[in-house]
Amino acid sequence: MNEFSLIEEFFADCTQKREDVVLAVGDDCALMTVPSGCELAVSMDTLVVGVHFTAEADPAALGHKALAVGLSDLAAMGAEPAWATLALTLPEVDRAWLVEFTQGLSRLARSYGVQLVGGDTTRGPLAVTMQLHGFVPRGKALRRDGARPGDGIYVTGTLGDSGLALRARLEGLPLSQETLCCVEHRLDWPQPRVREALAIRPFAHAAIDISDGLAADLGHILKGSGVGAAVEVEALPLSESLRASVELDQAWALALTAGDDYELCVTVPAKYRDRIRAVLSALDCPCALIGTIEEEPGFRCRRQNGASFIPQQQGYRHF
Amino acid sequence: MNEFSLIEEFFADCTQKREDVVLAVGDDCALMTVPSGCELAVSMDTLVVGVHFTAEADPAALGHKALAVGLSDLAAMGAEPAWATLALTLPEVDRAWLVEFTQGLSRLARSYGVQLVGGDTTRGPLAVTMQLHGFVPRGKALRRDGARPGDGIYVTGTLGDSGLALRARLEGLPLSQETLCCVEHRLDWPQPRVREALAIRPFAHAAIDISDGLAADLGHILKGSGVGAAVEVEALPLSESLRASVELDQAWALALTAGDDYELCVTVPAKYRDRIRAVLSALDCPCALIGTIEEEPGFRCRRQNGASFIPQQQGYRHF
Repeated sequence: MNEFSLIEEFFADCTQKREDVVLAVGDDCALMTVPSGCELAVSMDTLVVGVHFTAEADPAALGHKALAVGLSDLAAMGAEPAWATLALTLPEVDRAWLVEFTQGLSRLARSYGVQLVGGDTTRGPLAVTMQLHGFVPRGKALRRDGARPGDGIYVTGTLGDSGLALRARLEGLPLSQETLCCVEHRLDWPQPRVREALAIRPFAHAAIDISDGLAADLGHILKGSGVGAAVEVEALPLSESLRASVELDQAWALALTAGDDYELCVTVPAKYRDRIRAVLSALDCPCALIGTIEEEPGFRCRRQNGASFIPQQQGYRHF
Repeated sequence: MNEFSLIEEFFADCTQKREDVVLAVGDDCALMTVPSGCELAVSMDTLVVGVHFTAEADPAALGHKALAVGLSDLAAMGAEPAWATLALTLPEVDRAWLVEFTQGLSRLARSYGVQLVGGDTTRGPLAVTMQLHGFVPRGKALRRDGARPGDGIYVTGTLGDSGLALRARLEGLPLSQETLCCVEHRLDWPQPRVREALAIRPFAHAAIDISDGLAADLGHILKGSGVGAAVEVEALPLSESLRASVELDQAWALALTAGDDYELCVTVPAKYRDRIRAVLSALDCPCALIGTIEEEPGFRCRRQNGASFIPQQQGYRHF
């Protein structure tokens, strides 16, 4: 089997058909049109076997996650998803594996109107690189450098669940069957906050998605914006699963430092406090006000009683 | 060292600064603007250690080639290069290696005005995925489906040199030092035909770049356009190096089936015969008329005396 039939057989028709795609898989390049008045947002992520997932990982979940992490990056910019490209490196052509991988990928792609427009397939150690492409009206992107002192810091959903799943999987932390099921689903089938991000965009100053841990990712906003933050640990949104499984100190530490949650962290000026809650509530998305952007640089994490809280873990380090 | 400092240290400033880049490396997405009236052309390619290059390969050449293959795909569409993204998977952070890789990449990028706008760095077996992004005026792309009976089939430069280098490297074919130097340079430092493609665009019906071998790549044009071709082997452009190193039959076979030449194969209507020679001559680019597009499907490769010529090798198969 050669590269061309592999792409045609498995990927040519697996996703949404979009009118802005002039030419998809099957030529030297894909050709697309960007709506006038919009900027093009692109994000590229690689998942490597033995580093980000195991060789035994569910291929459908892998296809889903490869797309989800890119969609989450688009969400973090307030961009509307449009197209994906896929570079897939495979040790061999395993049709059953490819069918499942494609299904996981295409289900998520269809639900966000994303078309797979091109890519490359190569032989080698299993790895998946996806690039996502989206649109954002000119000048309206949610950047890391927009946070201002006085902004409220909001987080969607709950934090630390994927970290708990990883501790169970890698360190053997014992969990109830029900909890394991919940948190592994969060780890393996992340749901990017695309709709939420588009609803938030008019009201937020800055945004990031939480892929490497809240402290690390909020840290990027602080650095990019030249500001600091005070966060109250009791305000961190924790799931029942997480609360029931570890001590509160550990739960906070996971919420602050564990990655792979793919929730949004946004900073919003005080005047939009009600609006942000209203638009997220309309989407059934939980939303927690966890702290405030301050002028003084640094990340200050405190208990309600004023004591400092210093988590014992660090965000994911890539090297 | 984490992902962020790696990108910042080695890649943030390594390439051209472009005015159409709103936001490059350092946020969740890069943001760019596409000129109005243009389509966006994208192409993604992966090079994997042990498959496309060896662990001992010159990192500067690898950086160059990773970009060159994408630029060659843009050229094949008649697209003007603009931005690149890079997914780099590394077994470890080797600063000397990274410096050289970046130099090879950035030298070529600057010479075509390409800015590296984003990407990902991950740990794992060495692999390089690059996506190239370019512009082409709406409806003006050179596609594989545009060839028409009567079109002349033209090839830039010479064919088979990279194939000769591969035979020397992998099979120990003995070559003179001078020849080896010439053909290895073609294999390791391919020069994409970007300027040539832009000059040809107004006159050509269809184009492809020769990455998998002329027969295979011209075959894609024939299939895409629903036509056939007659090619005369004596017209294939061969370098002195190739002619001097193997029998003529083998030289033709390499020119027809070996990949990695990154020359252009274009089909041009008869009325533009002089124009195509003139625009390429102005760029000092050799150009050979090797055959004709015919209505009857199939690829007919003949000697001048009318006898069929069937090469003994096949184009590169990815699996």
